[in-house]
Amino acid sequence: MRSTMQDVPLSIGDQVRYGASVHSRARITTWTGGEPRRATLGEVGARAAQLAHALRELGVTGDERVATFQWNNQEHLEGYFAVPAMGAVLHTLNIRLHADQVAYIADHAEDRVVIVDASLVPLFAPILPRLRTVRHVIVTGEGPGDLAADGVSVHSYEALIAGRPETFDWPEVDEREAAAMCYTSGTTGAPKGVAYSHRSIYLHSMQVCMTDSKAVSQGDTALAVVPMFHAMSWGLPFAALMVGASMLLPDRFLQPGPLADMIQAERPTIAAAVPTIWQGLLEELESAPRDVSSLHSVVVGGSACPPALMQRFEERYGVPVLHAWGMTETSPLGSFARPPADASGDERWRYRLSQGRLPASVQGRLIGPDGSRMPHDGSSVGELEVRGPWVTGSYHGSEDPEKFHDGWLRTGDVATLTPDGFLQLTDRAKDVIKSGGEWISSVELENAVMAHPAVAEAAVVAVPDPRWDERPMVAVVLKEGATVEAAELRTFLSERVARWQVPEFWTFVDEVPKTSVGKFDKKSLRSRQSSGDLKVVEVRG
Amino acid sequence: MRSTMQDVPLSIGDQVRYGASVHSRARITTWTGGEPRRATLGEVGARAAQLAHALRELGVTGDERVATFQWNNQEHLEGYFAVPAMGAVLHTLNIRLHADQVAYIADHAEDRVVIVDASLVPLFAPILPRLRTVRHVIVTGEGPGDLAADGVSVHSYEALIAGRPETFDWPEVDEREAAAMCYTSGTTGAPKGVAYSHRSIYLHSMQVCMTDSKAVSQGDTALAVVPMFHAMSWGLPFAALMVGASMLLPDRFLQPGPLADMIQAERPTIAAAVPTIWQGLLEELESAPRDVSSLHSVVVGGSACPPALMQRFEERYGVPVLHAWGMTETSPLGSFARPPADASGDERWRYRLSQGRLPASVQGRLIGPDGSRMPHDGSSVGELEVRGPWVTGSYHGSEDPEKFHDGWLRTGDVATLTPDGFLQLTDRAKDVIKSGGEWISSVELENAVMAHPAVAEAAVVAVPDPRWDERPMVAVVLKEGATVEAAELRTFLSERVARWQVPEFWTFVDEVPKTSVGKFDKKSLRSRQSSGDLKVVEVRG
Repeated sequence: MRSTMQDVPLSIGDQVRYGASVHSRARITTWTGGEPRRATLGEVGARAAQLAHALRELGVTGDERVATFQWNNQEHLEGYFAVPAMGAVLHTLNIRLHADQVAYIADHAEDRVVIVDASLVPLFAPILPRLRTVRHVIVTGEGPGDLAADGVSVHSYEALIAGRPETFDWPEVDEREAAAMCYTSGTTGAPKGVAYSHRSIYLHSMQVCMTDSKAVSQGDTALAVVPMFHAMSWGLPFAALMVGASMLLPDRFLQPGPLADMIQAERPTIAAAVPTIWQGLLEELESAPRDVSSLHSVVVGGSACPPALMQRFEERYGVPVLHAWGMTETSPLGSFARPPADASGDERWRYRLSQGRLPASVQGRLIGPDGSRMPHDGSSVGELEVRGPWVTGSYHGSEDPEKFHDGWLRTGDVATLTPDGFLQLTDRAKDVIKSGGEWISSVELENAVMAHPAVAEAAVVAVPDPRWDERPMVAVVLKEGATVEAAELRTFLSERVARWQVPEFWTFVDEVPKTSVGKFDKKSLRSRQSSGDLKVVEVRG
Repeated sequence: MRSTMQDVPLSIGDQVRYGASVHSRARITTWTGGEPRRATLGEVGARAAQLAHALRELGVTGDERVATFQWNNQEHLEGYFAVPAMGAVLHTLNIRLHADQVAYIADHAEDRVVIVDASLVPLFAPILPRLRTVRHVIVTGEGPGDLAADGVSVHSYEALIAGRPETFDWPEVDEREAAAMCYTSGTTGAPKGVAYSHRSIYLHSMQVCMTDSKAVSQGDTALAVVPMFHAMSWGLPFAALMVGASMLLPDRFLQPGPLADMIQAERPTIAAAVPTIWQGLLEELESAPRDVSSLHSVVVGGSACPPALMQRFEERYGVPVLHAWGMTETSPLGSFARPPADASGDERWRYRLSQGRLPASVQGRLIGPDGSRMPHDGSSVGELEVRGPWVTGSYHGSEDPEKFHDGWLRTGDVATLTPDGFLQLTDRAKDVIKSGGEWISSVELENAVMAHPAVAEAAVVAVPDPRWDERPMVAVVLKEGATVEAAELRTFLSERVARWQVPEFWTFVDEVPKTSVGKFDKKSLRSRQSSGDLKVVEVRG
């Protein structure tokens, strides 16, 4: 039996129309280092309409891709609104990637137009001639700068939009059509494109505004430190639009000092960033105090937040730091660590330090070493697979069957789930050691080894083993002047982990190789091991 | 370009699976007058699975309708979960309707099964033999009682579900299929069926949990006084399920005394009911105080809440009373009166006393007397039309073109909208006086007349007029012992309303006829006027 409900698509055009009118007074503030640039949401909506008219005139039709190469600022937000609302596809390019990667991604997405911040022109200029599908570049800020390439027109953003109509008849869309794209910056293989739909962004925005998630509301001012090219700034811009929250955008001023200044001056109520940002801010505040009392919640994601950082923020500044977990592929809200209302004391902290609870719209399951479902008992470990209306089910223009499993996304994270839906990551699937049909967490072994007083750092990787398939190998960095034998470390470990998990293979190194974001580079460690580049000692018994 | 997102339908089955597992500890408490009946959401989910198995065995397949004739209690909630989740359609029958209406509605919906509360068997027994499509009746509570009809099997609910499996493989559904039905109890014409979809209920539940709406969250206990047969209890059961909020269900104990007792004993945090319930509770608390401090918000809808009631609740008990507007046709959340964060003092109260702000998913427009769009300027008046994914676009099994306009629902409410999206109802479209191409609000005239010291009550209706189409007629009830002439009332009015709105037609009556819910019965007044049953004086100049 058909329902009698109206068949109204969930569309970003409707959101822009709503936000720019009903919440026209919301404030969009861009930090400049000096006097902030101020606009209302009504003005940003009007300029988004002007931008849409301009893009139409440049020939952008249908689902063509309009890319951005911008900081978090007002113009970037205008593109966020204009491009999907006009039915085209917003593609947020990651300005931190290597030129080769940017060129690959822009080609792969078939970007037609790129909007570039003037301050990023030096970075973008050498990339531009390599882009095969781009026909127009639009430069925001002080003039087009020094950009040129065959067959590409370069425009000034302000000149291009000036004088155009301040409303646009946003077309009705099929809610399952792409609205925005973001490429993963996976450490292995080519970057993969995730294309969010109008539907997924709309539903995700509602979730972000739900009381048990980020609880964004009309009275909030959201400080989006997390880049707008990184999983849609964790959904903040569209969530803010939906409820008329104000936004504070840091532009390129991402250092601890300016962040502390803008929090004191503009009094945001909610902020989102990776842990290193908050670590830097905390140190800044301790050397030069500012008033950060306006914040009622700080959302942290991207990697696990050190407990000491969370506790210090909360105790010293009264600001709760809330853990979230997600990926580009999950829009990104996958879980959010608000403890159950009846939890208290240590139990409350255990929930806070987990990756959080999966909401109703993100289903999770754990697949164990033998491919079977593992129980959600808080201790059984498996690869986390997720399913839901804002979870990706494929990658744009590529076949990756190994990333999906009966329609579920394989997250690549190894985890436990509690009966009440809380997620605890224990390792990455590619790093876990598959030994005798069981999994050994590299992260847990590392933590156990690093608890030894002589050890500065320890990284654990799998090495092939004829009998057990894989066994763990530990790369140890000793503290300055310390000495210790592998045998002693084995004894130390045997009191802390199960007997069968205690590693036989050890190597002592001067430093653990790191990735560009500071994580252990286990891929490099594995290749150094397999090429015989490491001196490995084997200790048994 | 297609998005890469998974195509996961929004379904109640997924919600039930989630709530009953992740939030299994949430409490579902039913008031009994004595010791409350207590269950967990996990237990309710398990019993819903048992009910679904029982209904399958009774032959319920596909989209067949399973009706309920029940109070707000645990068993009703089990039906709420089981019936839509199994792919059938829940039809909540209104136990307050006349037997003729119940019979008409149950036939029209083609109900196959009816679940009846034992205490309502005396009310239901005479209706049952008139139901042409019903094959099974299931009685909750103490035994089947005295029910019989040809071709109908009568079952005990507990006996029927006992021993069945406590899980059910809830089928995947098309999210646009009907999940639940509710008939409007319009005062004119036959009742009309609204069929909510899985999609509409899901989206509406998210909205109810958004911070700017009812903000239902995991720590809440929601007291649903509003009947579960009345617009899905304003969406509370499915919203609570989505976030794992506990519920307090009053069963048949809807009088002020028991309500005050259950609030004190069970400490709900949020409650929803029509104004008369809160008026009664307020009086009860003033004569016999109870602790109602657990409530952090009280939602009022169904009709405008007297300002004095809102102010008294807030000042005396610290409980904010929040206005909401909606209809059966809007699921029902149409607007919610949280003031803008920067409003204060009198401005804040003006927002609070309005019908509230339309959320992003409910679009509103005003259609004026000549059929054109009226501006949203807070003063221009028009019939409110709404559009959105949880707004009805037709009625089940009937053609009602006059209720819709280019896909928008005509609400029948005459209103203003402010630029910031706040709704103020001024009249019903059928009561407004259409005079010379302009509209005169009957409600505003009534309020103006009732401000005269001699007047106890006044009702205004349209009477036909050869020159102006319609003119207002005022029916006045004088206060005990008071006397006043129509001419004096005209003079009084002419200082308060526009000259062209001042009525020429007056009648003095002993009382204004009222509907069963205590509203002015203007239909009756109009028919008494047109049949010459009233002594009408005409005063001009």
